[in-house]
Amino acid sequence: MQENRRNFLKLGATSAAVGVLGQAAAAAADTPQVGAIAPLAAKLGLRLASFAPGPQDKPRVGVVFDDGQVLDVGAEAKRQKVTLAFDPGSMLSLIDSGDQGLAQVHALAERAALLRIMRPTVNQVRLLSPIPRPRANIYAVGWNYLDHFEEGKAARVDRVVTEYPANPVFFTKGVNTMNGPFDTIPFDASNSTQVDWEAELAVVIGRGGRNITEEQAMHHVFGYAVYNDTTARDVQQKRHGGQWFKGKSLDGYGPMGPWIVTAAGLNLDNARVISRVNGVEKQNASYKQMYFKIPRVIAELSRGMTLEAGDIITTGTPSGVGFSRKPPEFMKPGDVMETEVTGIGIIRNVIKAEG
Amino acid sequence: MQENRRNFLKLGATSAAVGVLGQAAAAAADTPQVGAIAPLAAKLGLRLASFAPGPQDKPRVGVVFDDGQVLDVGAEAKRQKVTLAFDPGSMLSLIDSGDQGLAQVHALAERAALLRIMRPTVNQVRLLSPIPRPRANIYAVGWNYLDHFEEGKAARVDRVVTEYPANPVFFTKGVNTMNGPFDTIPFDASNSTQVDWEAELAVVIGRGGRNITEEQAMHHVFGYAVYNDTTARDVQQKRHGGQWFKGKSLDGYGPMGPWIVTAAGLNLDNARVISRVNGVEKQNASYKQMYFKIPRVIAELSRGMTLEAGDIITTGTPSGVGFSRKPPEFMKPGDVMETEVTGIGIIRNVIKAEG
Repeated sequence: MQENRRNFLKLGATSAAVGVLGQAAAAAADTPQVGAIAPLAAKLGLRLASFAPGPQDKPRVGVVFDDGQVLDVGAEAKRQKVTLAFDPGSMLSLIDSGDQGLAQVHALAERAALLRIMRPTVNQVRLLSPIPRPRANIYAVGWNYLDHFEEGKAARVDRVVTEYPANPVFFTKGVNTMNGPFDTIPFDASNSTQVDWEAELAVVIGRGGRNITEEQAMHHVFGYAVYNDTTARDVQQKRHGGQWFKGKSLDGYGPMGPWIVTAAGLNLDNARVISRVNGVEKQNASYKQMYFKIPRVIAELSRGMTLEAGDIITTGTPSGVGFSRKPPEFMKPGDVMETEVTGIGIIRNVIKAEG
Repeated sequence: MQENRRNFLKLGATSAAVGVLGQAAAAAADTPQVGAIAPLAAKLGLRLASFAPGPQDKPRVGVVFDDGQVLDVGAEAKRQKVTLAFDPGSMLSLIDSGDQGLAQVHALAERAALLRIMRPTVNQVRLLSPIPRPRANIYAVGWNYLDHFEEGKAARVDRVVTEYPANPVFFTKGVNTMNGPFDTIPFDASNSTQVDWEAELAVVIGRGGRNITEEQAMHHVFGYAVYNDTTARDVQQKRHGGQWFKGKSLDGYGPMGPWIVTAAGLNLDNARVISRVNGVEKQNASYKQMYFKIPRVIAELSRGMTLEAGDIITTGTPSGVGFSRKPPEFMKPGDVMETEVTGIGIIRNVIKAEG
């Protein structure tokens, strides 16, 4: 087993060309990517990963058990002779299938857990972004922790907004920002030298809708994931006339994972949003400090604008980002950006020079 | 023929529930939607439409001839026993297929034109957005005509940007803004009472790429379409802290069409971008007045951010929008918004109260 694992990790180390974004797998091949796994808030919750068993394989949906073993949902359905309501190669298909699909996965996992079978662990597969290819840009909330708004006031080029907005600030991140939980983040000094971290909690929409009320909003949530709204700060602040989109949308500048914890599995009030760079903590705040909470964010965003199953909303970052520090701090090639939401997990991305 | 046409148009009038956005077909059923068709700049050009022969039919790719007849590409390929390199039910599939697919369509159309067959005209089918469902948000350029930047200075809430940006301003429009060339635009007074027009030229990317140079940029263009970057001005300006995304992204606030003219078919220097509301001209400018021309827009947008086949970039609006007028003008239910790019065609959208 140990020998097999070493061989697999060697394979992983040579898989530089096959990443979702054509980048190298990030984590050093000789250390496990995932450490201790946080317990779920309720038995009804699930950790749902998109993973590739080997470097050449297409994504598959997997259930991550408490001990780190990964249940291959498609393979297990075959074994249990269950006809799935969704394509087990696509997290979006599972989300589309609604309660039926999720109930099938629950049942499969419960029955599978009774068997004493050794399955590959999260450190023996390649974990991809849970939604490797979103169907639309990622929706993002700006200035959603008061202390982050305040810290930014002095640093921002755009000093016109001095009072906290009465409604959430929304922008989007391009589809190719999507990146795996342990993949590298490209660094191109000719484009940006101010690569900054923004640890965030991402919400995945389960049931779409327009004009969703705050009261109904949580029924539209499929689950949560760790997200880093990685930002080319110079591009965001100075290059495009005050609109944030482009500085937020460089390829790979939005790692997500390591899996989705379904709505039942996370107690938001206990969740903390944390970032570390090279092991040094930079951000650490509670969900309780979030200004516009998830129901309000969903209600405002869906006002006149249809949200769809599989849409991703990242909910804003707490204080402690690089550009507001004195002196400002930015990441350079080799730096390790770690993002954690307690109760979900940790993602870890290495900044890597391009070209 | 006349009788058939009347019957078809009656059918069209009862198809309220089947629009891409679930909205009623916009144009009055007793007047043709499309008038005279502008000639193409070169024989190599093509008008490519997404159309539905009857209200219940799925989209098909069609070639629109100079006389307005629509060639059903899939049906014609069957007739000519040609195996297509793409799915004739999907413009994106055609774009993905690159030169091979486009060459097939050219050849099919040339051979078909030799036959004296009566085909349905553009007024006997339902014209959809050429790309009814984009794969990512629509990329948009702000302030790309100097006179529009100047007219906005006094009207804008955000008065911090007083000097013209050195680079294009980019933002995005949500995927559900996409709307047909003759479909209605929803009006919900509880959300926005400042629905404004922005006539624009949209560019459709044919070959994707990152860090595309200005010199190479035009080789990445598949074609052009008429676009209206319809804007909920109050939402854009006041509600979300200065980021434009949400006010630009209400469902249906981005009609496109009436077809794509492939790159060879349009002489940009001759193109004028025009809007009319209830028949009164509001905007009229030449491509020559565009500040950041298409090669620069593509180069800047693709810097560090991969563009993909089928991506849509709308290139900014000239002066004459409603909110910069004295007094400001906005559209209300029943108003007819007409958008034209000479050399491509005209789209026409009626504002319609929701609910």
